[in-house]
Amino acid sequence: MLGLGLIGGSLLQATVRRGRTAFGYNRSEAGAAAARADGFDADTDLDAVLRRAAADDALIVVSTPVTTLDELLPTIARLAPGCVLTDVISVKGAVAAAVARHHPDARYVGGHPMAGTSQSGWSAAGPDLFAGAMWMLTTEDHTDPDAWRAVAALARGCGAQVVPAANDAHDRAVAAISHLPHLTANATAAVGAAESGLALRLAAGSFRDGTRVAGTAPALQRAMLEANRIALLNTLSETIDRLVAARDDLRDSGSVEIIVDDGHRARLAYEAMATTPVPPIVGIEPGEADWAAQMRRQGHLGRTWQR
Amino acid sequence: MLGLGLIGGSLLQATVRRGRTAFGYNRSEAGAAAARADGFDADTDLDAVLRRAAADDALIVVSTPVTTLDELLPTIARLAPGCVLTDVISVKGAVAAAVARHHPDARYVGGHPMAGTSQSGWSAAGPDLFAGAMWMLTTEDHTDPDAWRAVAALARGCGAQVVPAANDAHDRAVAAISHLPHLTANATAAVGAAESGLALRLAAGSFRDGTRVAGTAPALQRAMLEANRIALLNTLSETIDRLVAARDDLRDSGSVEIIVDDGHRARLAYEAMATTPVPPIVGIEPGEADWAAQMRRQGHLGRTWQR
Repeated sequence: MLGLGLIGGSLLQATVRRGRTAFGYNRSEAGAAAARADGFDADTDLDAVLRRAAADDALIVVSTPVTTLDELLPTIARLAPGCVLTDVISVKGAVAAAVARHHPDARYVGGHPMAGTSQSGWSAAGPDLFAGAMWMLTTEDHTDPDAWRAVAALARGCGAQVVPAANDAHDRAVAAISHLPHLTANATAAVGAAESGLALRLAAGSFRDGTRVAGTAPALQRAMLEANRIALLNTLSETIDRLVAARDDLRDSGSVEIIVDDGHRARLAYEAMATTPVPPIVGIEPGEADWAAQMRRQGHLGRTWQR
Repeated sequence: MLGLGLIGGSLLQATVRRGRTAFGYNRSEAGAAAARADGFDADTDLDAVLRRAAADDALIVVSTPVTTLDELLPTIARLAPGCVLTDVISVKGAVAAAVARHHPDARYVGGHPMAGTSQSGWSAAGPDLFAGAMWMLTTEDHTDPDAWRAVAALARGCGAQVVPAANDAHDRAVAAISHLPHLTANATAAVGAAESGLALRLAAGSFRDGTRVAGTAPALQRAMLEANRIALLNTLSETIDRLVAARDDLRDSGSVEIIVDDGHRARLAYEAMATTPVPPIVGIEPGEADWAAQMRRQGHLGRTWQR
């Protein structure tokens, strides 16, 4: 695991707990020391960690912000070029482009576990973070099926379900259900705080929950959102359009019927999906003819890889 | 308690639990029967309930949607004109205007407990709903101090803290920290669901929390939001302005720095306020010279009435 923050640290803990050998790199000595103090194998010497990974034919997981890739990937390409490589970064198009630039022969399969808190760092990590979570895996026509299996096994071992998807479909999806909610949370928090001290004193559940993710460290939010610029611009524009239409309706006819009905129906659809057992992907194995397209098709129907 | 939904039902349960005599009216027989089945005194005969309230000199609490007031208030004025009257409706200007229209001599003090869930009805009610909650009380220069004390005692008896405020300041505040978060939750939910099934499958904490209140019954959301039209229009316009500025920044410079920094700072201010013990209002009693203005001033500094 390269990077022992919330995600990488949780991954290290979950992997060691199921009896696998795992070791980590962290740039700051404080983070590495915290991991060692908890009994984990962590180092600040990137070259040494990568040489060890190469010697062990380890699976390498990049769990650092997307902004670190231009520095990190060339080192991986130099010291551990044959290792299967994945990442847990919340955008996939930008990571795939960086891999193509710096490590074009990588046995790379991108990943994105849909788990997190507004806290960050090793101190917030825990081995149960991924239990029951969805974990997107890059599933393109050229994806190496053996590497895909290896990364899928890592996710399954952490208790997650694997969602196969193309990178661009993933990036549009997370713009809508993760990056946009960060922007609306930030806007709502700012408007509330700017209103009055009375407003913050009266703030209750709707404000508390609706602004929670604005508590995430600004640098992490920015790295995540700005790396998904194009998809986020589209979904943000659609959101603005809906809010402008709601404002016009409210001003002209005193009604918020459309936005409330649309939003309520959408929330019920989400709740129904979130509370129904997820059907498994069936009838196809990685490496079989047309496997990636078939996996993506079943993924779009809401199925997950559960083996 | 007139209306035995989430708020009125919880109020009935909390009041009875502390040993007071309390009884309720509910329009639907189903709701009244549910309350009776749980051992509470509930009826569907409004006239009988109001005659009993008048005979007992009861404190009357209106806990029905704002849209019922034009029907309810004239009946109260006719059958129980001398009773102290309050309400728990989430807007105060519209309620005060309806009281002035239909029951101008009422000993009325508006109230708004900042408690709720996305569920509604008697089945969602419970006596602990108001524990630790803020409970705004209309505190205008002409407010009757004895009626104010009576309503404050009701709120304190439910475990809430009393926040004195003028009606217009309250309505602006809740537009920002309650009604706007409903609109952003609805817009976010609708955009997410419209994206793809993949998006809803990948939805995790930020979407779940950020859209929670979109699960509230549409009729309740509409009644609440539409009754606060002017204040909501202002705060919604400010939100749109912030999101448009963020879109322009993201498009032109690839940065979301301003909205993320503003939002993060606001969220930290809210968290600091929510986790610090609330200082009490001191040095003034209801009925003393200039008491309402002094109460409001301390309320704006974040103090609450805790006696």
